[in-house]
Amino acid sequence: MPAMIPHKIDSLATLRLRIREFAQARAWESYHTPKNLVMALSVEAAELLEPFQWLTAEQSQHLSADQHEAVRQEIADVLIYLTRLADLLDIDLLEAAADKLALNARKYPVEKAHGNALKSTDFSND
Amino acid sequence: MPAMIPHKIDSLATLRLRIREFAQARAWESYHTPKNLVMALSVEAAELLEPFQWLTAEQSQHLSADQHEAVRQEIADVLIYLTRLADLLDIDLLEAAADKLALNARKYPVEKAHGNALKSTDFSND
Amino acid sequence: MPAMIPHKIDSLATLRLRIREFAQARAWESYHTPKNLVMALSVEAAELLEPFQWLTAEQSQHLSADQHEAVRQEIADVLIYLTRLADLLDIDLLEAAADKLALNARKYPVEKAHGNALKSTDFSND
Amino acid sequence: MPAMIPHKIDSLATLRLRIREFAQARAWESYHTPKNLVMALSVEAAELLEPFQWLTAEQSQHLSADQHEAVRQEIADVLIYLTRLADLLDIDLLEAAADKLALNARKYPVEKAHGNALKSTDFSND
Repeated sequence: MPAMIPHKIDSLATLRLRIREFAQARAWESYHTPKNLVMALSVEAAELLEPFQWLTAEQSQHLSADQHEAVRQEIADVLIYLTRLADLLDIDLLEAAADKLALNARKYPVEKAHGNALKSTDFSND
Repeated sequence: MPAMIPHKIDSLATLRLRIREFAQARAWESYHTPKNLVMALSVEAAELLEPFQWLTAEQSQHLSADQHEAVRQEIADVLIYLTRLADLLDIDLLEAAADKLALNARKYPVEKAHGNALKSTDFSND
Repeated sequence: MPAMIPHKIDSLATLRLRIREFAQARAWESYHTPKNLVMALSVEAAELLEPFQWLTAEQSQHLSADQHEAVRQEIADVLIYLTRLADLLDIDLLEAAADKLALNARKYPVEKAHGNALKSTDFSND
Repeated sequence: MPAMIPHKIDSLATLRLRIREFAQARAWESYHTPKNLVMALSVEAAELLEPFQWLTAEQSQHLSADQHEAVRQEIADVLIYLTRLADLLDIDLLEAAADKLALNARKYPVEKAHGNALKSTDFSND
């Protein structure tokens, strides 16, 4: 990519296209089955877990600049694989998240969930 | 949230605000330390792994409607926790992904990475 | 398994055989590729993560009887898949662990690692 | 550990003691809360996932010697953290696995589970 001009990515739609081009240019498409991509996503999620494993809750709120940058890169990796997976499965990420938040709003009504830990602090529905 | 009017979420910035409001309304903020959120993200990533664990590569490319909807919800959960974590750490998701793609473009030049599996099919840098 | 007499399992070698018989009796062997089994193991590890995600460090040290039993079952699942994977890959679990501890003893000498967090509290070598 | 004589580890009980001594000698005990250890275990499970992510099912059954040794070390890491966690929670690993297999035998009767994929190929109970 000798003359690549790094252009700004200003939406998830643009990110999706850029990742698609990236994979096509490297002929990685045959590796990018949904099964392989969920594995890659789990690996990246664990790489994001790793810098936090021995930190206290408080320490995790006050990362050093180096820690913050490392975490930022792992967060980017998770988003990249998530976007790639959603592209292959023809899923609109923002729409999926909006639908899930609406589902969670019904599942965890404000009055019941207030300050309540464990299961009810979970955004997910199982 | 009796009179909640479900509004469309048209950007990651809007999603970030909606999730923030969701957590504030339920007083979940004290649970949302970075350490706890990376754990929640890993749990969701594994719930996305789960429906694929016994599928062949081919089967993973042809999900049933039910499987597809289940996967869509898990993808949403991953995005929701990722967005929440990025909000707390003051990380711009799209900027982080753009920077990482630029880094990866240098790390995996097209000519070297072409059709090359294993480490070099990885978007991540380690 | 109508007349199954539950016999005690007194070693990893016996556990390995029992799991092998269990899988054979159900014709699950074709599903048990190493790739699928590492996915199943990661899913179980995350199910073990899940009950701890919103707990403080202190709370995680004082589980209720119900929480303890749930965690015990998830720990069992991890061991079962780990044993099955090691069986397929012809790996002796205790020997592998002994070798790794010896490696770690050299990597983290007592005088350097004393009370030192982060990377150096890690048993693993990367 | 200058005069450490590496002795053979011939049971999980011995492994548990060796790991306990290892952690005590390095004053790592304060880091070893159940919450932190389940995180470490998930990180190791993902490191075991990583070498398999781009392999086909077939390739995962025919690892090179280098791949096999890397996988063996990651398997060891998982067992080490699992043993450490079980020690802290006073859980007998073999007994827990035996109880879980008995539970699974009732949950997945041979006649129903035969060659049946997805949920029913799962050793775990959810």
